[in-house]
Amino acid sequence: MSHRTVFIISDGTGITAGALSKLLEHFPRTSSTQVRLPFTDSLEKIESAIQNIEKVAQEDGVRPIVIMSLGAMNLRNKLKEANAYFIDLFKNFIDPLGEELGQEPLTGAGIAHSVMGYSYHERMEAINFTLNHDDGMTNSGLEEANVILIGVSRCGKTPTSIYLAMQFGIKAANYPLIPEDFERGTLPQALQKHIDKIFGLTIKPERLHSVRSERRPDSFYASLDNCRNEIATAEKMMRNYNITWADSTSRSIEELSAIILQKIKKPNVERRSEPRPA
Amino acid sequence: MSHRTVFIISDGTGITAGALSKLLEHFPRTSSTQVRLPFTDSLEKIESAIQNIEKVAQEDGVRPIVIMSLGAMNLRNKLKEANAYFIDLFKNFIDPLGEELGQEPLTGAGIAHSVMGYSYHERMEAINFTLNHDDGMTNSGLEEANVILIGVSRCGKTPTSIYLAMQFGIKAANYPLIPEDFERGTLPQALQKHIDKIFGLTIKPERLHSVRSERRPDSFYASLDNCRNEIATAEKMMRNYNITWADSTSRSIEELSAIILQKIKKPNVERRSEPRPA
Repeated sequence: MSHRTVFIISDGTGITAGALSKLLEHFPRTSSTQVRLPFTDSLEKIESAIQNIEKVAQEDGVRPIVIMSLGAMNLRNKLKEANAYFIDLFKNFIDPLGEELGQEPLTGAGIAHSVMGYSYHERMEAINFTLNHDDGMTNSGLEEANVILIGVSRCGKTPTSIYLAMQFGIKAANYPLIPEDFERGTLPQALQKHIDKIFGLTIKPERLHSVRSERRPDSFYASLDNCRNEIATAEKMMRNYNITWADSTSRSIEELSAIILQKIKKPNVERRSEPRPA
Repeated sequence: MSHRTVFIISDGTGITAGALSKLLEHFPRTSSTQVRLPFTDSLEKIESAIQNIEKVAQEDGVRPIVIMSLGAMNLRNKLKEANAYFIDLFKNFIDPLGEELGQEPLTGAGIAHSVMGYSYHERMEAINFTLNHDDGMTNSGLEEANVILIGVSRCGKTPTSIYLAMQFGIKAANYPLIPEDFERGTLPQALQKHIDKIFGLTIKPERLHSVRSERRPDSFYASLDNCRNEIATAEKMMRNYNITWADSTSRSIEELSAIILQKIKKPNVERRSEPRPA
């Protein structure tokens, strides 16, 4: 197992550059440490970053990886004096894209995330909706939902709902399937009329047992037997209603969300971006 | 104003490729429509994507932009037969990174987001903590918080808290400053002992007035006068306690989060990534 330090250096938030650091996970034989340096927008800050990089290069015994998003040419050139492997978003992407589009890129900081227009407002709405419709909190307003996630308690509904809202402006309600539902053998009445918006989550019994045991060790709720029963009954119910479902056991929130997005139709996901206010 | 369609084509979730599409915002004279095609992992799906691209190229009268993350060389080569401007994550980043690291990249789908190890668990914990400590819901457990956001109602505390938890595994509590606090002129007792973890948010009165008016039009709560008073009092209070604060008016959640991250110290943000289970 080798090791590298990854610096994310941006004149803005570094969110886009940070997202690229995920690409390191294509190399499982290398572990990494991340150092984020957002708002690095002056020569002074660049010089301090260089010192930081040189220090780490010595400590690690190998040059660090620098993912950089710097608009100003003098900052870019200065930073590249450091002893590092550089991934330069402007040189690799933004400048060539500018040629394709026949435009000079804006180089001000924070541009890629100033989303105060249409999409910002929609995300806020979606987050509020999702928080107010978490864990079956209310049946009112479900007609506004873009998707309703169902599944046994602790199978990943809440984080997935929030991610859908935060990232894609999806209004995602979620409902736990509880013993009452299993005894009755049907979905709650309030959900039945929204059957076309329902997406199911399931999980492996062993994993659910472990997740629930952290919260309530040695309880009936967390016992492997109960987890097995609940999951079998929930899956049977979803099968009866012909509900599409996904297994969260070995999937990240991001993967689950991408799967759910494919299933639901939401105009926002394929949308025309609004011009930003000047 | 010109227009381009941006295809995000991945054999996995397309989350990392999608993050790069933010770079288009450096070109405000071009509006864009996004089409996401995740899990494009067979020649059949690539061919269907090509047809889609050609159709859009004809409709738009200009070739689309394709941001692609495909591990398999035959899929990559096939896709490039389409009439488009390609941004190829493997060619530009992953393959060169492999040379730097002296390793062949894994090309399986979904690699960059299989975060079931340490960091996954930590994010879940943080999300649960944040949801349970939203909007001053409880004072218990605040000693576990990494940060406590305060500010007047509707200034952006909740979405910022959730983003910090979701993206960085930060346990973020948040507290509204309410008329009771303003009359007393001091922070609630429960917060005073955590003063070193408090970060303030503020907002411009006009913006707050508009946000609150959507929720409760023509109310005293939403009136410009009341918004002005609350904000002035809240800022004075934060000044008295020497609390760092940021203005959310023209900042995205991502920017606010990056600013807050700089203020708080969280081991997770600069962390050694764990090797993933095989």
